[in-house]
Amino acid sequence: MQSIKKMKEQTWSFLFEECVNPNTTAGKYLLGGKGAALANMTNLGLPVPPGFIITTDCCKAYHDAEKIFPADMWRQVRGQLSAVEAKLGKRFGESENPLLVSVRSGSPFSMPGMMDTILNLGLNDETVGALARQTGDERFAWDAYRRFISLFSQIVLRVPHEKFERVLDRYKNGQRQDADLTTDELKEIVAAFKRLVFAEDRQNFPENVEDQLKMAIAAVFDSWMGKRAVDYRRVNRIPEDLGTAVNVQAMVFGNLGAESGTGVCFTRNPSTGEKTLYGEYLLNAQGEDVVAGIRTPNPISVLEEQMPVVYGELLELTSRLEQHYHDMQDIEFTIERGRLFILQTRAGKRTGAAAVKIAVAMVKEDLIDRKTAVERVSPEQLDQLLHPTIDPAAITEVLATGLPASPGAAQGIVVFHPDEAEELAKQGEKVVLVRRETSPDDFHGMVLSEAILTQHGGMTSHAAVVARGMGKPCVAGASDVNINYGHNEFTVGEMTVTKGEWITLDGTTGRVFRGKVPTVQPQLDEDFELLMSWADDVRRLQVRANADTGHDSEVAKKYGGQGVGLCRTEHMFFGEDRLSVMREMILAGGLGEREKALAKLLPFQKRDFVEIFRAMNGLPVTIRLLDPPLHEFLPGKYELMEELTEMKFKARHAEPRAMDFLLDEIADKRKLLRRVEILSEANPMLGLRGCRLGIIYPEVTRMQVRAIFEAACEVLGEGVEVHPEVMIPLISTVEEFCHQAALVREVAEQVVKEQGVKLDYLVGTMIELPRAALLADKIAAEADFFSFGTNDLTQTTLGLSRDDSARFLPLYVEKKIYADDPFQTLDREGVGELIKIAVTRGRAVNPKLKIGVCGEHGGDPRSIEFFNSLGFDYVSCSPFRVPIARLASAHSTLGK
Amino acid sequence: MQSIKKMKEQTWSFLFEECVNPNTTAGKYLLGGKGAALANMTNLGLPVPPGFIITTDCCKAYHDAEKIFPADMWRQVRGQLSAVEAKLGKRFGESENPLLVSVRSGSPFSMPGMMDTILNLGLNDETVGALARQTGDERFAWDAYRRFISLFSQIVLRVPHEKFERVLDRYKNGQRQDADLTTDELKEIVAAFKRLVFAEDRQNFPENVEDQLKMAIAAVFDSWMGKRAVDYRRVNRIPEDLGTAVNVQAMVFGNLGAESGTGVCFTRNPSTGEKTLYGEYLLNAQGEDVVAGIRTPNPISVLEEQMPVVYGELLELTSRLEQHYHDMQDIEFTIERGRLFILQTRAGKRTGAAAVKIAVAMVKEDLIDRKTAVERVSPEQLDQLLHPTIDPAAITEVLATGLPASPGAAQGIVVFHPDEAEELAKQGEKVVLVRRETSPDDFHGMVLSEAILTQHGGMTSHAAVVARGMGKPCVAGASDVNINYGHNEFTVGEMTVTKGEWITLDGTTGRVFRGKVPTVQPQLDEDFELLMSWADDVRRLQVRANADTGHDSEVAKKYGGQGVGLCRTEHMFFGEDRLSVMREMILAGGLGEREKALAKLLPFQKRDFVEIFRAMNGLPVTIRLLDPPLHEFLPGKYELMEELTEMKFKARHAEPRAMDFLLDEIADKRKLLRRVEILSEANPMLGLRGCRLGIIYPEVTRMQVRAIFEAACEVLGEGVEVHPEVMIPLISTVEEFCHQAALVREVAEQVVKEQGVKLDYLVGTMIELPRAALLADKIAAEADFFSFGTNDLTQTTLGLSRDDSARFLPLYVEKKIYADDPFQTLDREGVGELIKIAVTRGRAVNPKLKIGVCGEHGGDPRSIEFFNSLGFDYVSCSPFRVPIARLASAHSTLGK
Repeated sequence: MQSIKKMKEQTWSFLFEECVNPNTTAGKYLLGGKGAALANMTNLGLPVPPGFIITTDCCKAYHDAEKIFPADMWRQVRGQLSAVEAKLGKRFGESENPLLVSVRSGSPFSMPGMMDTILNLGLNDETVGALARQTGDERFAWDAYRRFISLFSQIVLRVPHEKFERVLDRYKNGQRQDADLTTDELKEIVAAFKRLVFAEDRQNFPENVEDQLKMAIAAVFDSWMGKRAVDYRRVNRIPEDLGTAVNVQAMVFGNLGAESGTGVCFTRNPSTGEKTLYGEYLLNAQGEDVVAGIRTPNPISVLEEQMPVVYGELLELTSRLEQHYHDMQDIEFTIERGRLFILQTRAGKRTGAAAVKIAVAMVKEDLIDRKTAVERVSPEQLDQLLHPTIDPAAITEVLATGLPASPGAAQGIVVFHPDEAEELAKQGEKVVLVRRETSPDDFHGMVLSEAILTQHGGMTSHAAVVARGMGKPCVAGASDVNINYGHNEFTVGEMTVTKGEWITLDGTTGRVFRGKVPTVQPQLDEDFELLMSWADDVRRLQVRANADTGHDSEVAKKYGGQGVGLCRTEHMFFGEDRLSVMREMILAGGLGEREKALAKLLPFQKRDFVEIFRAMNGLPVTIRLLDPPLHEFLPGKYELMEELTEMKFKARHAEPRAMDFLLDEIADKRKLLRRVEILSEANPMLGLRGCRLGIIYPEVTRMQVRAIFEAACEVLGEGVEVHPEVMIPLISTVEEFCHQAALVREVAEQVVKEQGVKLDYLVGTMIELPRAALLADKIAAEADFFSFGTNDLTQTTLGLSRDDSARFLPLYVEKKIYADDPFQTLDREGVGELIKIAVTRGRAVNPKLKIGVCGEHGGDPRSIEFFNSLGFDYVSCSPFRVPIARLASAHSTLGK
Repeated sequence: MQSIKKMKEQTWSFLFEECVNPNTTAGKYLLGGKGAALANMTNLGLPVPPGFIITTDCCKAYHDAEKIFPADMWRQVRGQLSAVEAKLGKRFGESENPLLVSVRSGSPFSMPGMMDTILNLGLNDETVGALARQTGDERFAWDAYRRFISLFSQIVLRVPHEKFERVLDRYKNGQRQDADLTTDELKEIVAAFKRLVFAEDRQNFPENVEDQLKMAIAAVFDSWMGKRAVDYRRVNRIPEDLGTAVNVQAMVFGNLGAESGTGVCFTRNPSTGEKTLYGEYLLNAQGEDVVAGIRTPNPISVLEEQMPVVYGELLELTSRLEQHYHDMQDIEFTIERGRLFILQTRAGKRTGAAAVKIAVAMVKEDLIDRKTAVERVSPEQLDQLLHPTIDPAAITEVLATGLPASPGAAQGIVVFHPDEAEELAKQGEKVVLVRRETSPDDFHGMVLSEAILTQHGGMTSHAAVVARGMGKPCVAGASDVNINYGHNEFTVGEMTVTKGEWITLDGTTGRVFRGKVPTVQPQLDEDFELLMSWADDVRRLQVRANADTGHDSEVAKKYGGQGVGLCRTEHMFFGEDRLSVMREMILAGGLGEREKALAKLLPFQKRDFVEIFRAMNGLPVTIRLLDPPLHEFLPGKYELMEELTEMKFKARHAEPRAMDFLLDEIADKRKLLRRVEILSEANPMLGLRGCRLGIIYPEVTRMQVRAIFEAACEVLGEGVEVHPEVMIPLISTVEEFCHQAALVREVAEQVVKEQGVKLDYLVGTMIELPRAALLADKIAAEADFFSFGTNDLTQTTLGLSRDDSARFLPLYVEKKIYADDPFQTLDREGVGELIKIAVTRGRAVNPKLKIGVCGEHGGDPRSIEFFNSLGFDYVSCSPFRVPIARLASAHSTLGK
């Protein structure tokens, strides 16, 4: 740190080998990410083409001085250029053996909108000849020259790209490729480009190579304050005053014949994590040729045959880099006439499966410790692992590729219109909705599709946000897909896919396949279990699961759930045999009838609780009392009305005898309709539900509590350890809580006494209304635990219905009115503020208060980090997200 | 104060004439309200029967010492008893000329649950004879004795009331009244009572009069800690440690012959406010006879003829009391053998009309100043004045009386069942729902009734709370009304009222009349205007009105509104001619069609704004942009479905030619239904509404803003002064506000430029979601004003739908889960906390931020006090509540 500081005071620019501690945070801030890596590799003794870095401080000084270079900068740069010249025996701008350089930006964070690379800087009318002589390829030299002129002019002089294209087009005449241009034509083009530059810029293209370099450096600095960069920093909250560094590096050429080449490799397989060098290369080619995809690269293993020495060297160097960085590396290299150069190294991107395998392997290899291994796998990568994926054995040709907008793989028949999607889906077809882009009006069709494919739109487009919200796979912005709604078909290049054909989407990778490609369910192997156990060693937060049945509870336990954080008792009433009894209860004429129906429901509930308690033996089980409005259990008003209208029409034309029967039926139906109407609510979310039900109908609470404690006593007898935690929903006043808690304790004590056992239990509440959060101190004085119901708390704090807002939320996220879908990632500023207030006030009164969360956010990594920071005891999420929550909890403890 | 303090250190009990400064707050705290008044009157030289007060401090000392009297208390009490004896020439417990006393509790606040009065304490087997001799009426003496024994035994010894009644019943034999009992029978009853006491209490009834007094004092002290008193204090937040005083006063008798009597009078008419002595009395009677209503009392004016000297004395004394207390007095007096005694004085209860008249008159008489006059009229009294009332000229016989549960007068035909009420009301009948008591299941019938009458239930019963919530008259707990649901009738004594008969309710006074009694609309006279102008001089808060039309705005201005605080633009779209255009807009296939429809709506809106601006010339007008969900403007889903089903059935049986036409119709209807379904929401309150509409359809905002500013420019040309304040609804993020505010400012500037005028305007927002309140600092940095939408803020903070909760809210209020209906009186703890946060954070960033409220609470006096305390600039309420808000604002400034 100190040495860096010292450097800063003296120097604006460093040779790669001069940089001290580049591989530190301070180093990256001063040198930029790219520069730090180059300096580091040079220090390690790797064959990096020589060069130097103009620091981010210099950029800041430049802008502070209103775009004037610091006094001593050029002298320093010139000195370092000389050092590079000396090293290579070349001279910058010299006509015999000229030094050519690349100039690149390099900020501490990778950032779109920053200046691109300029290659071959140092070419002019003289040096081009030298390049021709050196390479023995005149055409190559002039092609490089005309490319340099147009790139430099676009980036530095801001001459529009199209103007150069237009000149080229005149020569290509609509028939020839760039490669068809002759050396003479290229020479003419160079002249034409120069005329164009003069016409546009009123200045000659700079022949002086030092001017070229000065102008390029200034252009990099200027791009730091360009509109796109400034916008990006504002949105992503990157400080304005970081500045960018400039990397100036000697050019090496992979296209100087059969002994030259260029390639990219990973130190391990980024798809599977297998420990073998993985990658591809092209001989006699430049980096851009690999990217352009005109020639098919060779797998890296072929290099072993073609250039065994270089391959051996590459193996050794890449292995050193991995050892040095303690992580799998993604490395760019160039071979110039048999000599290997490393141009870049960085941590390699990898799939979820690879991430787990690599992390565990590296611990076994003693490369990293367990905590680091845990940090190396992101919850998003784990999420990939837990979704169905395309069977790797079955992969056929990829039809098209778009953005991996929502993970998972799924298949269905192609449908272009949401109405049609809805109709076919309702007939039992599996459909994939294919749209240019989606809008709120498509929502009804999206809901019923297996997956969604769009031609336009990014990772935060309407389709992407909606799909992620619903957990459906989505490939967005697949720009090769050309949709023709009129013909009910889409084309990809030559291929045409029509309505009704099967396609398969892989939302994890963004790939689109023709036909039904087999998918595989997630397989969680030993490495996975090992990594999760390390995460468990690290984390402080407990992870429970939301489970309503014995089966769910078993799944939750298998995935490492440490209890049930939310058992929704109402789900138990939806079974075929139970619903009719539930309706009896609701339609009861008075207390007596209602109690009779409740008595019939009790055994159902009790049986469910017994199963859950058994599955969770020894772990706490939080049971929420009846929560939803009663009309959710009744038939819909619409259907009843339709039936009634139909019956009336029948009655009109009925025979007298049939009539009597019909009239009786009509009377019954009308009675039911009447009850449904009385119970129906304008805003059920804010209606007669939650603890309000238990206060209006205390007998319902009594029945549920009796079922819970009779079940608990029963399994106690089997030797099962039970920890029931009874949770009262939708509290807004402490009086509500006290009313229901007293009832719970009364019935619980009664049952325990009847059964003659000893049983500890807790009585707590959901905090899911703003008022409850504000009055947490009062409620905490009475309650054993709080469980934040962040779904409802988000709905009420934002005034936003989860059921309804899906239609416009995507637009809100797109317009950046919301940073994220607040139902997926907790709104820290608003909802989070209320949670903070509640935790502070609650714990102040009751320091032992157990605090958890059981909304969707309990399984969202970014939200988990927030809950951890507030000192929550646990999060609870769906059983399948338990591993993600375990990992995210560990990350938040590690401060990652 | 100091003298009081000194007294406390030395003395536990004071003779009335010894009390220093009883008429101060400290005096009332030490002596209790009743004692302070007695002491004060004694000091004024009024003829008050002598007595003394045992202080509240003594009560506290008694409880601190675990129910032991302070050491010196009894010595002091005995001394003061002697002083009373000396004054009257009587002796306590003496068999010749015994002193009898009354013992009453008297706490600083009047409080139910405290001990009742014990009369004639000092009677025993000896003194009863002396009383017989003194009064010359042996029967009277023994009657008094048996009453004393039963009262003392019930209150002090806690012998159940029914046991005494059972003894009495044996003598009355089901046929005779108390008055029929002979002296001998009374003597037997006394003996029987004593045996009863011994049987119950295992102690003889105390013959020793000093024991009687000690036990009575202890009983008063004990009642302070009785369950009812403790509960009452807890609910009403009266401190536990105030204690109660005990008043011991010599008995005087109004029933010692024709020269004796008792009565009650007011110094002014409590109904009209007229300045004449008003009241009634009975000769040869005790206070309880007046209350019992067996004999009909005389109007006080008759006393002038019967006892001119006493009447003159009464006139003089009551006038002195009014002068002394500077308020109309309610006075109890007794005449014992021609001698006038004043037993109690207190501020008299009065109607709204009387309150205004008296307050204004007293200012003119220089009795009070204007501020005091303003304080003397409560907003509730003003509310009475603003409702229709029974025409005083037309009052016939009162059928029954109950609690004045919800003010106003109304009439309709009697209906007993809510379903029937609904059915008849829908047929256009005016109905009054008559129920034993109401429950949530009656709600649908209550909504459609003119007024509600219940046999049971108090001021906070379901019926009362629902009726007040809906602004309908209600008489609750009319216990004389006996309802027979089976016969569809109710009886009051001998009278029977059957279903379908007309009755009239006066919810302001609690009276029920048979038939249609004419009602009169409120008349606001000069006194009213004068009082309101004084209130205006005092208040700081501005009062605006919620008005959507020119007509409403004129009414608001007439009632003193200082601008429009909320103009709901959507109300303008419900007119017959407009609704169809609005539907065109909503059903539009795309932006082009929508803009075409909007262009048709613009002139309607503009015309409305012109009228409002004209009416409010010079005053600010706050206009809220479109707020409700769009489907509110479309036909209901149910109706459409029913129509459609009917059409389909018709089509089945239709002729081929008619069929074509029907099929077209069906297609259209289906299209409409489809749109309605797409727009329909599960929770419209939390759906696509408010600013969300304007963000999804910016063209709607553009049209509305254009209409506002074109209207403003037009009236400017007429010389009208306009101050438009554009309000953006349902903001939850500052991004939403910025999006819409930018649009408002853009269009406004455009219009102003087109018209070439200069126009100041504000752009602000509703704060009606918890998130907006929490993020008020960010929003205040961008907004000119905040208007709290406390309706929606209450809905979201409490998670409580206003439309749905009416069914269970009354039960919540009855069970004290909510102290009040939170939609009527602001929930300070919850919603108020958010408002406090918003005001603090908002003003910290923008000290000039204008702050108002436009929810229902803007017209609620208790809420207004809260808004004033937070430094709001204005409240806005319905035009008819403007006077109430003006008065309440003045009160809150006066700290009342």
